[in-house]
Amino acid sequence: MKVRRSERLIDMTCYLLEKPHTLVSLTLFANRYDSAKSSISEDLTIIKKTFSDRGIGTLETVSGAAGGVMFIPKTNKEDAKAFIEEMCDRLSEQDRLLPGGYVYLSDLLGNPAILKTTGKIIATQYLDKEIDAVMTVATKGVPIAQAVASYLNVPFVIVRRDSKITEGSTVSINYVSGSSERVEKMELSKRSLKQGSRVLIVDDFMKGGGTVNGMRSLIDEFEAELVGITVFAETKFSGERMVEDYTSLLCVDDVDVRDKRIHVSPGNYFDKLNK
Amino acid sequence: MKVRRSERLIDMTCYLLEKPHTLVSLTLFANRYDSAKSSISEDLTIIKKTFSDRGIGTLETVSGAAGGVMFIPKTNKEDAKAFIEEMCDRLSEQDRLLPGGYVYLSDLLGNPAILKTTGKIIATQYLDKEIDAVMTVATKGVPIAQAVASYLNVPFVIVRRDSKITEGSTVSINYVSGSSERVEKMELSKRSLKQGSRVLIVDDFMKGGGTVNGMRSLIDEFEAELVGITVFAETKFSGERMVEDYTSLLCVDDVDVRDKRIHVSPGNYFDKLNK
Repeated sequence: MKVRRSERLIDMTCYLLEKPHTLVSLTLFANRYDSAKSSISEDLTIIKKTFSDRGIGTLETVSGAAGGVMFIPKTNKEDAKAFIEEMCDRLSEQDRLLPGGYVYLSDLLGNPAILKTTGKIIATQYLDKEIDAVMTVATKGVPIAQAVASYLNVPFVIVRRDSKITEGSTVSINYVSGSSERVEKMELSKRSLKQGSRVLIVDDFMKGGGTVNGMRSLIDEFEAELVGITVFAETKFSGERMVEDYTSLLCVDDVDVRDKRIHVSPGNYFDKLNK
Repeated sequence: MKVRRSERLIDMTCYLLEKPHTLVSLTLFANRYDSAKSSISEDLTIIKKTFSDRGIGTLETVSGAAGGVMFIPKTNKEDAKAFIEEMCDRLSEQDRLLPGGYVYLSDLLGNPAILKTTGKIIATQYLDKEIDAVMTVATKGVPIAQAVASYLNVPFVIVRRDSKITEGSTVSINYVSGSSERVEKMELSKRSLKQGSRVLIVDDFMKGGGTVNGMRSLIDEFEAELVGITVFAETKFSGERMVEDYTSLLCVDDVDVRDKRIHVSPGNYFDKLNK
């Protein structure tokens, strides 16, 4: 039975949002709704315009026999700016200050709406790059990796500091923690990353950059390729940072433990985006 | 400027999918599209029908002055059944077998599409319950907790076996691991869970049930309330299980290390769903 345009538009929207970065053929939609390809084509033109006008993302058309459409989630700059400014305010909340000048982030990184927006913003920066996997380190990087991977529609892999029997054989490396200068160990399940994979590193927080640098060594060890590094928040670091080329959404500029004041400003995201 | 119905339907669909379990007023949509409430009402009737027909979820209408609509993501039984059967096949793959009879799951739990479906299926079971937070234990439970929390639109909290300075004060408990009978420790950041919260526990794997039982003790310690327990996979356990009332999507019935054979069948999800 033929399906009406209104129903097609709603269902196609759901279908495309569920499967970002996936080529969907016009034939699939034509069969799904028992409709002519010409009607499907008209539907997609309407969806494409709305997605673009409303800052949902872009709908790319691939022509030819193997053609179809692909939904690319994309945050526009205004939305990203508003979100990052809101996060600056949230991170500056006095009661987030922990002993040692650390900042409590677990509530934000356990909030699905914040994670979705964060994931979409990070994914937007890498749209012109090919990415095969997102890498992070357990535990707090995991929700960010999952959110980014979901928008890029690629798997994510979790590096661990402790060995687990449920990971099978692992490859491990030693790395120097940038802030404490201790030598630590991290490892990744051998079968979780293919040789030659293009990898995006994400994490919740960067201080000296030691952990991120460790992940970079792991990528080398797997003969994979580093595409980029993005952290949710960086903090001003007095020593020499072990990682130079990275993106941060937020920057904790200053923490005054005595007055219980945290000063947070936007990170270098927009500088990197314009490059 | 007035927005046409086709554009409204597409944008409303995106808006509702982004914000599940959130009451959205007709006024919001009427202003957003500069359209009459009666038109918005008609749009929503079409969306409601399509969401229901296509197994996307239900659109609940709340009438009155403070009324509006709320999107409830929901998996229908056929889709859940097909997914669980597919996962049985995937989990039975010979090369997943690890020393000690463990099963490698990290690739599945690092796949965004699998996580989304898993999250939606688990969330569906608890639609008639009020839930304030999803709880899991680091590390492998995190992606499942995030996926479920995303569909229920509630925060998730991560219990840890190791203390971290970035968590602030924590509450810790000792628990007995069901399979190894060792006493271990787990802890949760004090500020992450409010007294009286209704909590859903999720995890990737359950053997003796010790870890899940530990989380139950933590919930007591926080004077919170346990709503339910769901694991991605359980494994047949010879001893007495420490947890009786739980749901599993999958059950690893038998592992033959010599012949490298894993037998996996659907868990008790559908029995629990029908209750």
